[in-house]
Amino acid sequence: MPHLLDTAAAGFDQQFRSLLSAKREDAEDVGAAVDNIIADVRDRGDAALIELTARYDGLDVTPQTLRIPPEEIAAAAATVSADDRAALTLAASRVRAYHARQMPRDESFTDPEGATLGWRWTPVDAAGLYVPGGQASYPSSVLMNAVPARVAGVGRLVVCVPAPGGQLNPLVLAACQIAGVDEVYRIGGAQAIAALAYGTATVPAVDKITGPGNAYVAAAKARVFGRVGIDMIAGPSEVVIIADGTANPEWLALDLLAQAEHDADAQSILLTPDAEFARSVAAEVDRLLPGLPRAAIAGASWRDHGAIVVTRDLAEAAELSNRLAPEHLEICTDDPDAVAARIRHAGAIFLGGWTPEAAGDYVSGPNHVLPTARSARFSSGLSVMDFLKRTTISRLTPAALAAIGPAAVRLAEAEGLGAHARSVAARIAQHAGQGARS
Amino acid sequence: MPHLLDTAAAGFDQQFRSLLSAKREDAEDVGAAVDNIIADVRDRGDAALIELTARYDGLDVTPQTLRIPPEEIAAAAATVSADDRAALTLAASRVRAYHARQMPRDESFTDPEGATLGWRWTPVDAAGLYVPGGQASYPSSVLMNAVPARVAGVGRLVVCVPAPGGQLNPLVLAACQIAGVDEVYRIGGAQAIAALAYGTATVPAVDKITGPGNAYVAAAKARVFGRVGIDMIAGPSEVVIIADGTANPEWLALDLLAQAEHDADAQSILLTPDAEFARSVAAEVDRLLPGLPRAAIAGASWRDHGAIVVTRDLAEAAELSNRLAPEHLEICTDDPDAVAARIRHAGAIFLGGWTPEAAGDYVSGPNHVLPTARSARFSSGLSVMDFLKRTTISRLTPAALAAIGPAAVRLAEAEGLGAHARSVAARIAQHAGQGARS
Repeated sequence: MPHLLDTAAAGFDQQFRSLLSAKREDAEDVGAAVDNIIADVRDRGDAALIELTARYDGLDVTPQTLRIPPEEIAAAAATVSADDRAALTLAASRVRAYHARQMPRDESFTDPEGATLGWRWTPVDAAGLYVPGGQASYPSSVLMNAVPARVAGVGRLVVCVPAPGGQLNPLVLAACQIAGVDEVYRIGGAQAIAALAYGTATVPAVDKITGPGNAYVAAAKARVFGRVGIDMIAGPSEVVIIADGTANPEWLALDLLAQAEHDADAQSILLTPDAEFARSVAAEVDRLLPGLPRAAIAGASWRDHGAIVVTRDLAEAAELSNRLAPEHLEICTDDPDAVAARIRHAGAIFLGGWTPEAAGDYVSGPNHVLPTARSARFSSGLSVMDFLKRTTISRLTPAALAAIGPAAVRLAEAEGLGAHARSVAARIAQHAGQGARS
Repeated sequence: MPHLLDTAAAGFDQQFRSLLSAKREDAEDVGAAVDNIIADVRDRGDAALIELTARYDGLDVTPQTLRIPPEEIAAAAATVSADDRAALTLAASRVRAYHARQMPRDESFTDPEGATLGWRWTPVDAAGLYVPGGQASYPSSVLMNAVPARVAGVGRLVVCVPAPGGQLNPLVLAACQIAGVDEVYRIGGAQAIAALAYGTATVPAVDKITGPGNAYVAAAKARVFGRVGIDMIAGPSEVVIIADGTANPEWLALDLLAQAEHDADAQSILLTPDAEFARSVAAEVDRLLPGLPRAAIAGASWRDHGAIVVTRDLAEAAELSNRLAPEHLEICTDDPDAVAARIRHAGAIFLGGWTPEAAGDYVSGPNHVLPTARSARFSSGLSVMDFLKRTTISRLTPAALAAIGPAAVRLAEAEGLGAHARSVAARIAQHAGQGARS
């Protein structure tokens, strides 16, 4: 795909559709393997976890060492530099403050008929957070998952993280400590998801599982959904940037490359009405790419999935962005609010040149777990709501039931549900009888 | 299973576990058939819909007659009696008033560092509601799905309903009219879900699909999830009633039977500390069951899945209810609020003897689409939130980025993401340079 597209050029619509529909994930068939792992953990519990951990992570564990003891977490966290710890603490505190504002309110009101109606929010009893091992073992992800759960009031917060060859990332353990995680287990892959969903003698089951993972983890989450709640099945990360000629080409090139360095399947797209600016950003990408530590990954992503699109105007750029429904949307224009007002679908919006997406990935406060693959059309990023559920509450007085109940009887009879109708009618009859006697 | 259990009896815990884990759904293997139907509709669009509708519904349609024209809806709705229409209108208006209170607020605040943070809610562009045909074609379900979508501000609201042999339920079409549905198609089964998810020449794709359906519909919804949003895969309906000796045994027997008459797989459970009252309710169930129009279904459900459990006290009843995490919970005790305060997991709570669940099924106002099969531990009933999504918004000033950005640089470097670090550092450097010059 050419990097520079123009909406006025012949064939643009077809090129754009290929950006929309490009299959950016390996359809690796892991289903059967994952089914076997889940069945094994359900049947044999800890014994299966121990065998699978030896096989996949090259690590010998016992029921006594599956859980990482608090002293080991504290010792690992103590090796983290003071600056790194301060950065994690700042991030946790800003994420906490933002998510505290998300807490929904309970409601109760009495209507003119005398029905008292409302709802109440309660946290899930226990949540499990999956943290990948190896290169994708990100302490920032621990914070983005654990802090909202804690804010929501989840009683028991569990982390599973693989320790291949015994190795654990001290920053991950420090993040667990800072976020107030209750239990950490050195278990990874589909076996960790199975343990969290079904429980074993050592790992008690949870009610909700969140967190990123590889294809095995994603397939396992999809399979245990229903037994427990899950957050979402995240695809490769993506950014759209809408910019005009007032933006800084170097900064935007770095933002495009920051997305691209996540993963060769990541996608970075710039939409701008300024053809000259488009060429400047393309040149900056070419200049900066070779100097990056992850140049190979970022280069592959940019080559295969990146694009710079010259649009008629900013309105057209906003409309193309709505079709992409991106996970991340940066708006770097003279008047970003005017463009933002045209946006209907995006996981997160970053306004103005001084709001790089990377700040949001770590310290701004909003969550970095966001809907990918155009799912921002119908879903939202992770929030306290993922760890809460709503119970509706109703209480009718005899008079309220007498006022609205006859309609329920009527509809129940129309739907052929006789016991429904009689359960309401019997009460109305009693109330009418009481009224006659009084 | 014996109907009368006692928590103090030997073996109770095992009996209770079987109530919890009873597999109440046929594991009918419809997967392969549904895969074929979805692929066929994706590949051949309207032509596939027409063939499948002829095969499964015995109905000949053309691209011109797939959609039910407004005149046909109006003519069918005109055959509905004035009383039925008034009942639907009352129900719609009460559901609308309740759901309007659920609308979440946007938020924006500026923190001490100068970061302006918040979020914004937007509706999905288009939603599709599935309505089953035949005996389960409930006008109340149309209202419970369509009204929240309309309150949320969904732009385009589509219903698919099968018309086996050409038959449609006039009450369903009247409910579509009252709720303000934009388009109605006479398509059912997995083919309707595929059309809503992928679109055809006649049926434009939607972003979110909700509504109940048979095993084919449920399997199709699970398969298109990700391409579009879905509400939930509902299992058989269930009620738990917590009562003491102050409740009316006849009313509670009717409430247990109202649940049971839905489906032979439905489940009705009474929890009470009063053994005498328990026996009274059991006797009332036996007395009332034979007179019901759906006695065969209700009888099978009660026989196979019903139970009355005598508990030590109301606290134990509440704890057992939390383990069941029921879809519906009626609390018919002297002080229902005191019991409700102990409830952590339930889709909907009905307080006091004058609040039969059946009133909530139709006219109280809260939604009747609720989490089943213990999923109230981690999920909520249908609401306006199902038709909205949240976009987080952030805007940093240069000073705010200078204050919090260094922590982002630090964490990005710790995670090995060099372009992330540089995208923030380049801006901070420019700001520092400006500061030095000023």
